[in-house]
Amino acid sequence: PGKKVLIVYAHQEPKSFNGSLLKIAVEELTKQGCSVTVSDLYAMQFEPRATRNDIVGHLHNSEAFNYGVETWEAYKRGGLSKDLVEEQKKVQEADLLIFQFPLFWFNMPAILKGWMDRVLVQGFAYDLSKACDGGLLQDKLSLFSFTTGGGQEMYSKQGIGGDIRYVLWPMQHGIMHFCGVKVLEPHICYAPENVSEEKRKEMLVAWTQRLKTLWKEKPIDCSPEWYFK
Amino acid sequence: PGKKVLIVYAHQEPKSFNGSLLKIAVEELTKQGCSVTVSDLYAMQFEPRATRNDIVGHLHNSEAFNYGVETWEAYKRGGLSKDLVEEQKKVQEADLLIFQFPLFWFNMPAILKGWMDRVLVQGFAYDLSKACDGGLLQDKLSLFSFTTGGGQEMYSKQGIGGDIRYVLWPMQHGIMHFCGVKVLEPHICYAPENVSEEKRKEMLVAWTQRLKTLWKEKPIDCSPEWYFK
Repeated sequence: PGKKVLIVYAHQEPKSFNGSLLKIAVEELTKQGCSVTVSDLYAMQFEPRATRNDIVGHLHNSEAFNYGVETWEAYKRGGLSKDLVEEQKKVQEADLLIFQFPLFWFNMPAILKGWMDRVLVQGFAYDLSKACDGGLLQDKLSLFSFTTGGGQEMYSKQGIGGDIRYVLWPMQHGIMHFCGVKVLEPHICYAPENVSEEKRKEMLVAWTQRLKTLWKEKPIDCSPEWYFK
Repeated sequence: PGKKVLIVYAHQEPKSFNGSLLKIAVEELTKQGCSVTVSDLYAMQFEPRATRNDIVGHLHNSEAFNYGVETWEAYKRGGLSKDLVEEQKKVQEADLLIFQFPLFWFNMPAILKGWMDRVLVQGFAYDLSKACDGGLLQDKLSLFSFTTGGGQEMYSKQGIGGDIRYVLWPMQHGIMHFCGVKVLEPHICYAPENVSEEKRKEMLVAWTQRLKTLWKEKPIDCSPEWYFK
């Protein structure tokens, strides 16, 4: 109660299964007294491309454009584009970040990757000397909630997709943990498009149930062992 | 000689180290008698977002938009948007796909992820029953060539980045191998921004040298062991 949650949502269709998962999260967390903000990336037509347009005004070095350097410098002087500043404000205020998306090619959809690329700039999310346990976004939690196309048997050590945790490494460890954000167990709905209506309903109920006790959960130990043991 | 190469390139700045690597590849492969095509994603302002705009004309199901289903159906009836058809044609004709990019957040930049999301649609790159060794893009080779921000010591089993091969799994195995494309050893230039000018030159020479004997290379064994042994 009183906690702030930012849900970064990447699906084109409100009537999709991802749309249902989003709706449940908003309703359940609001019911708990949390303040919930949604960044609905497709609806916002969020820009995924990291370009010179992200810097307002002059460049630090206009001879050779270096996105990392330029956004870092722009962040320090308050010169990032408006859409990035707004997303950073949402992140700054949040106690919990939930990422809701369909797994696309063993990874997040490009529009969500673009959110990571553009919002989590150096100076805001991390610094060269301040990464992982020293990351700049400490005291926050994150949760990756996603659907897959393939079934659970595909994402096992023996399956052609390999252990599902392999694909979580770049997202959970490489991004969130790097910025100092703690990581809760992912929430994975396998192949909702290929299961019965009954099974789909069970998955939605399971998400509601999980959210009820979410604040009591302990973050995972985000170390190589969790992913590759 | 006579081989066709498609280089999918994702950097904003021609004067960057990635720009130099691209230039070298174009020059060396052309010198060998290869026909080289470059998709310069930022210069093309390539669209990374997977939306309804990718389908020309009517939708298969306009009640609830499902990107995977709609692009599959559109592919079959020749109804994908022009930019996708053009990229698919380049892929179809290529013997070798080279992806040249800076590693962003343990992954490819969003603009390149968007290329994967939008170009490699079902029916064109894979089918439900035709994945991996049965993928639809067989008899092609791929090579991920990228730069990192962190040094090589960061990307070791003991480093905070973990083994660099961990981040290659979603890209090489999850995308290329899934489509039946064979994978050559990645080409990684560690932290070009943080090394001496001399070291940078050595890295460029090494890339030229590698390209000279590239066609004699054997693809890696793209199995979990290669990544997580």
